[in-house]
Amino acid sequence: MSSFEDADTEETVTSLRVTIYHPGQMQGGIFQSIRFSNPEKLPSSEVVKFGRNSTVCHYTFQDKQVSRVQFSLQLFKKFDSSVLSLEIKNMSRRTGLLVGGMELGYLNKVELPSRCVVRFGEYQLLVEKQDGESLEFFETLFTMSPRPLLQEQGWPAGKPTPELCWSAQSTCLSACPTEMDENEY
Amino acid sequence: MSSFEDADTEETVTSLRVTIYHPGQMQGGIFQSIRFSNPEKLPSSEVVKFGRNSTVCHYTFQDKQVSRVQFSLQLFKKFDSSVLSLEIKNMSRRTGLLVGGMELGYLNKVELPSRCVVRFGEYQLLVEKQDGESLEFFETLFTMSPRPLLQEQGWPAGKPTPELCWSAQSTCLSACPTEMDENEY
Repeated sequence: MSSFEDADTEETVTSLRVTIYHPGQMQGGIFQSIRFSNPEKLPSSEVVKFGRNSTVCHYTFQDKQVSRVQFSLQLFKKFDSSVLSLEIKNMSRRTGLLVGGMELGYLNKVELPSRCVVRFGEYQLLVEKQDGESLEFFETLFTMSPRPLLQEQGWPAGKPTPELCWSAQSTCLSACPTEMDENEY
Repeated sequence: MSSFEDADTEETVTSLRVTIYHPGQMQGGIFQSIRFSNPEKLPSSEVVKFGRNSTVCHYTFQDKQVSRVQFSLQLFKKFDSSVLSLEIKNMSRRTGLLVGGMELGYLNKVELPSRCVVRFGEYQLLVEKQDGESLEFFETLFTMSPRPLLQEQGWPAGKPTPELCWSAQSTCLSACPTEMDENEY
């Protein structure tokens, strides 16, 4: 009992839950290197890269249509906050990254709200962030979704609007199959 | 002539000129791994780390008082801009990073103006950014300053003011020797 009673108070960590979907996920083995339902603890200082190149990316997609580095996630601390914030940066020269209703070009970046759908090509990722106390570590947890995450409703057809990214209403989870607009890629 | 005439138009690159000073620079060999006056071309997607650990840092300081990773620089592209912007992030849990008149704690980050003095411990770095056309590469160039870069004049004694970072007036170059306030470390 005494070691339990004397132990440091355990800190909660920032948690990123990533629910991922690709129409070819059951056939191609594109997610074979991602360990689903297996929480992973990473240093908060790490820039976590997603893409095809396993030498530089922490999470890889086995798919030639994916860029060597597609995008990166990184945590940072705002001056007026005690918890960590999350930023996403498009690292692909070739493919736009849709974050909520906003399109990021090469090296564009935005802060992610606590719940946001991120898309590139036919990939859909719902990123959900839960705040924790620790500044040292954060945790990732991947889940594969059996169905598309996103139903596109009422998004502006023209230029992406930055404000949409910040609105939880811009991500609409749906159990119904969704038509992707192939023209955008 | 024809290969010259047919060659692609050469793009200018974003250039970061870093002028660095430490009071012990002539004795200790702290800058021995930095190649001064030697421009280096790097991919714009790279997060450039500065610190003591040569495995993870691109530019290392041979000094036990420096953190394994002290700070990082990274380029990004604003939505409304055709050129690259520059961001600095404090990666040290132990030491504050002074950017202009603003103190960054662990994982705090700010965009650097085109000319800004960055300090930690007894290190002073003047970072000057010159815009270029290329989104692919940028260039660094290090110079060692024979004398301190900074004369502290009229900075607020209290809490750092974010706005100061954005003002060119907050960096005051001087040829005169400068007293560092040892109490802040």
